[in-house]
Amino acid sequence: MTSDDQLQQVRERINAIDADLLRLISERAACAQAVAKIKDAHGESVKYYRPEREAEILRRIKAENPGPLDGEEVARLFREIMSACLALEKPLKVGYLGPQGTFTQAAALKHFGHSVHAQPFGAISDIFREVEAGACDYGVVPVENSTEGVVNHTLDMFMRSPLLIAGEVTLRIHHHLLSNAKDLGAVRRVYSHQQSLAQCRGWLDRYLPNAERVAVGTNADAAKRAAAAEDAAAVASEAAAELYALRVLAQRIEDEPGNTTRFLVIGSEDSPPSGHDKTSMLLSCRNEAGGLHRLLTPFAKQGLSMTRIESRPSRQGVWDYVFFVDVCGHRQSPEVEAALVELKGAANLCKVLGSYPEAVL
Amino acid sequence: MTSDDQLQQVRERINAIDADLLRLISERAACAQAVAKIKDAHGESVKYYRPEREAEILRRIKAENPGPLDGEEVARLFREIMSACLALEKPLKVGYLGPQGTFTQAAALKHFGHSVHAQPFGAISDIFREVEAGACDYGVVPVENSTEGVVNHTLDMFMRSPLLIAGEVTLRIHHHLLSNAKDLGAVRRVYSHQQSLAQCRGWLDRYLPNAERVAVGTNADAAKRAAAAEDAAAVASEAAAELYALRVLAQRIEDEPGNTTRFLVIGSEDSPPSGHDKTSMLLSCRNEAGGLHRLLTPFAKQGLSMTRIESRPSRQGVWDYVFFVDVCGHRQSPEVEAALVELKGAANLCKVLGSYPEAVL
Repeated sequence: MTSDDQLQQVRERINAIDADLLRLISERAACAQAVAKIKDAHGESVKYYRPEREAEILRRIKAENPGPLDGEEVARLFREIMSACLALEKPLKVGYLGPQGTFTQAAALKHFGHSVHAQPFGAISDIFREVEAGACDYGVVPVENSTEGVVNHTLDMFMRSPLLIAGEVTLRIHHHLLSNAKDLGAVRRVYSHQQSLAQCRGWLDRYLPNAERVAVGTNADAAKRAAAAEDAAAVASEAAAELYALRVLAQRIEDEPGNTTRFLVIGSEDSPPSGHDKTSMLLSCRNEAGGLHRLLTPFAKQGLSMTRIESRPSRQGVWDYVFFVDVCGHRQSPEVEAALVELKGAANLCKVLGSYPEAVL
Repeated sequence: MTSDDQLQQVRERINAIDADLLRLISERAACAQAVAKIKDAHGESVKYYRPEREAEILRRIKAENPGPLDGEEVARLFREIMSACLALEKPLKVGYLGPQGTFTQAAALKHFGHSVHAQPFGAISDIFREVEAGACDYGVVPVENSTEGVVNHTLDMFMRSPLLIAGEVTLRIHHHLLSNAKDLGAVRRVYSHQQSLAQCRGWLDRYLPNAERVAVGTNADAAKRAAAAEDAAAVASEAAAELYALRVLAQRIEDEPGNTTRFLVIGSEDSPPSGHDKTSMLLSCRNEAGGLHRLLTPFAKQGLSMTRIESRPSRQGVWDYVFFVDVCGHRQSPEVEAALVELKGAANLCKVLGSYPEAVL
């Protein structure tokens, strides 16, 4: 067979696959409409977006993926298919911390797909307000940034908002070496946030052993300083390279590929159990010896693993500190339920911020 | 049957559809790998990205779409599936006019899908340079903006670049009424680019008949002015609302829904025929009576419809004006070929900038 004949054969197979895909995607969308109709007919309060069911589907797709596409890529395609089907029932309105082009926008689209109506807002408090007022169905706000630490404003908002956490999104962040210099040989100083410098230590030791490392407030600030010099570089994002017209001397120089930043999806309800969930809560106790230890005992007793703890000064004047705690497990699970009962006794404040599926993608 | 049973039945059908979709998408990706292997084995120059074939597929999908999803939405899903399959063979590197969050980034992702490596650049000339140097496979640049007119810098670059046009992308742009005012009753003036004011005339006549309309340079400038007043509004984009913290008093106020902006995909080659193509060219003649008319005669004779003509002062000093002309048809079609032969006689300059599929999405 000539290569043309072979190619022709494969292309005909692709065309046949496309026809099947079109039929199946259309049938799936019709099923989504059928679900809405059944719910309507029975007068149920119709909740179209089901985070726990979407998480289950994405996890199954990743587990059963035969390749050659990688699991994340296939899950991303299903995320878009589900997003399109959901928009047919009711297009979700999602507010995010703008402007456009930020990581938070990317997180909102990664979580909800591109068929939602995503709207940028200028402040985290605006997003809470819009969701509280029902003008947005959900909001997406940053909560952890591995380079710039916790986004405190988001945590503070939870102290006074009735909103719950309905999901989490993680994004992988890459670090690049940016400079005006033509090559590594000309770089005498490297600016970055100290956490970014730490995350790229292995690479810097190997390729820039003699350059001075200077820790600055943010990676954007580092890029700005590098832009003003001929013999300096910054460890920062691709966006910073573009903003400050810096050359990318080396890409993805982080030692560990798992450098991520985390966002929360906020809404008026949290999510039913999906099988792999987290529960976030706000705890407080008086600032006395052993106070925090006592606070955490119920988790240990129930064998619950804590994925994060963060302390914040309380603004309420009554307690000295509040703690944001994430544990693995849904609040409806017996272990978390038992721990919460015990906590109500031990803590001055115990506010469950929500249970939600662990980030799948 | 209870509603729970009915729902269970539909959900089981969705799960079965998802399993089929996963199998088909994976098989499609394996086919893409097979294509690459056949080409490699026969020592052909391997061109992975085939704009004409992608356009054909998307057109067929839209034509055969049975619903309930609309044609654009289904085509968008196939765009993402093709993008993922293509990335498996060779991830395309696409440069676009940054920063992130601009319409040009949206255009690049709409055309190539989200599996490409899209990189922002600060200037149109940078993108031409990167693609010329082979550092990017393709570039995406704005060329027509229905609100701010032609992007002249892009046209000027074509005068001296050897690059060709491999595709076009159109984006629908919506206008909103933005203001500090609480409601329409408080709006005394409306700022915008005159083209935007014209595009929203019907709405403005109806809802703001007594407000003064003030034409300004750009819609962003209009938003800035509205932000500085209590009794003014701007017709501008959602992004401008966020940037200047303005209230969106009314959404999508354009009279015609077809308000679009256009981008070009540039590369080292143009595209083979796809069945519905355009050809762009740069023409020039001496500035004498009837000159332009003579220049356009060959198109009329061949029955070719012209979709755009734009004049620009020549920077070369030899001719007074150059014209950018788009016609329907591929340069390999007999009609376009005949017109080009005739043009070579009539024009001082006749440079074909490329033939490419008409925008499908």
